[in-house]
Amino acid sequence: MPKIDVCLSPELIHLFDIKEKVVVIIDILRATSTICSILNNGAKEVIPVPDLEKAKKYLRKGYIVGAERGGKTIDGFSYGNSPFDYPSEVVKDKSIVLTTSNGTKALHLSKDADQILIGSFLNLNEIVNKIKTINKDCLLFCAGWKGHFSLEDSCCAGALVHYLSEHFELCSDSGIVTKDLYLQYKNDLMVMIKKSAHFKRLNHFGVNKDFDLCITQNLFNQVPFWNGSSIMLG
Amino acid sequence: MPKIDVCLSPELIHLFDIKEKVVVIIDILRATSTICSILNNGAKEVIPVPDLEKAKKYLRKGYIVGAERGGKTIDGFSYGNSPFDYPSEVVKDKSIVLTTSNGTKALHLSKDADQILIGSFLNLNEIVNKIKTINKDCLLFCAGWKGHFSLEDSCCAGALVHYLSEHFELCSDSGIVTKDLYLQYKNDLMVMIKKSAHFKRLNHFGVNKDFDLCITQNLFNQVPFWNGSSIMLG
Repeated sequence: MPKIDVCLSPELIHLFDIKEKVVVIIDILRATSTICSILNNGAKEVIPVPDLEKAKKYLRKGYIVGAERGGKTIDGFSYGNSPFDYPSEVVKDKSIVLTTSNGTKALHLSKDADQILIGSFLNLNEIVNKIKTINKDCLLFCAGWKGHFSLEDSCCAGALVHYLSEHFELCSDSGIVTKDLYLQYKNDLMVMIKKSAHFKRLNHFGVNKDFDLCITQNLFNQVPFWNGSSIMLG
Repeated sequence: MPKIDVCLSPELIHLFDIKEKVVVIIDILRATSTICSILNNGAKEVIPVPDLEKAKKYLRKGYIVGAERGGKTIDGFSYGNSPFDYPSEVVKDKSIVLTTSNGTKALHLSKDADQILIGSFLNLNEIVNKIKTINKDCLLFCAGWKGHFSLEDSCCAGALVHYLSEHFELCSDSGIVTKDLYLQYKNDLMVMIKKSAHFKRLNHFGVNKDFDLCITQNLFNQVPFWNGSSIMLG
């Protein structure tokens, strides 16, 4: 039986051997939720970049570029980290470049993994099905916030642990605590979100509809994967 | 109102500014439980050392030295990391030197804090009272296991968050998840211990009575503190 484990923060990723593993990146508020939305709305690909310099280069080449730090769209960019910034009429058949505070950094830290999937509540069931089909050791990688533990990312990781528990061996305490966390809040994820530090930070920016969307379970039925240069639906 | 926060692993301690703060070191299985026991059994002090070389120097000088790595007593040392290694007749009025896998390392990572207390289930209420009396910003520092999240350390941190919640502002998601963890298991901490990875590791070594002791709440009514060179009752 393959193993499943949870990395609670990018600051802990060096403790895990990710080669040969399937890594699922989770950044609920909002990078991975937004990536799922962009691709579901018809974009050809999402190109994640770790820093603003690279994002500016793409901007000068005429790409649609989303750039966010600390919850806010960076000056000089027209798009941020909200799923609502990327409706179908904006993204259809286009390449979208994205740089965010935590999620795109976690992606680049996972580059040595065997396969890299983009996880969120929006595509929960399909992530579960995909991981079961691949049937290899799996690491759920919570993007967190500036290296800190994040309630909403961990809760989503716990959902995956829970729904995969019959098929994967759970081998760590981080898996147990995240599973317990999901089971505690699964019938009302908004209660969990409203407790989170990230809610308190983002709530000032008037992004309430983002919260509702980002905790909607199973809105989309495809799984984005990262091939090392761009993210596409698998 | 002062703030309370939780550091889930020594690998995350650099994210926190610990100067001016009260730091509580928590390593339930077993360093901080053992330190509380040694001092309650009448030892004059516990001298925590981070590495085996320093421990050997103390051994050559004739000290009683406990040395543990990976759950086992190190060859050449007579004492390990079990509270039962240190009964009153062994430790009364003596200086005990201790080096362990995780707990004594966490101690040395906290050296810049304003005050450093030793926390465990054994002295839970007294730690709560002490922190209330000091009334400064407080960081609960889980020693974890080789940098990984630990269920039992986090559960004890959550107990402290819970009992201090009316007096301290909880300012992070790690505080929320650990509090939820404690509230879930507080009526039967053995259920929590038996789920933990550390139980599975240590259970091979026949230390069952250690588990029973280390989850006993409020057996002792004094708080050990570290003055930078040795740990004594405060």
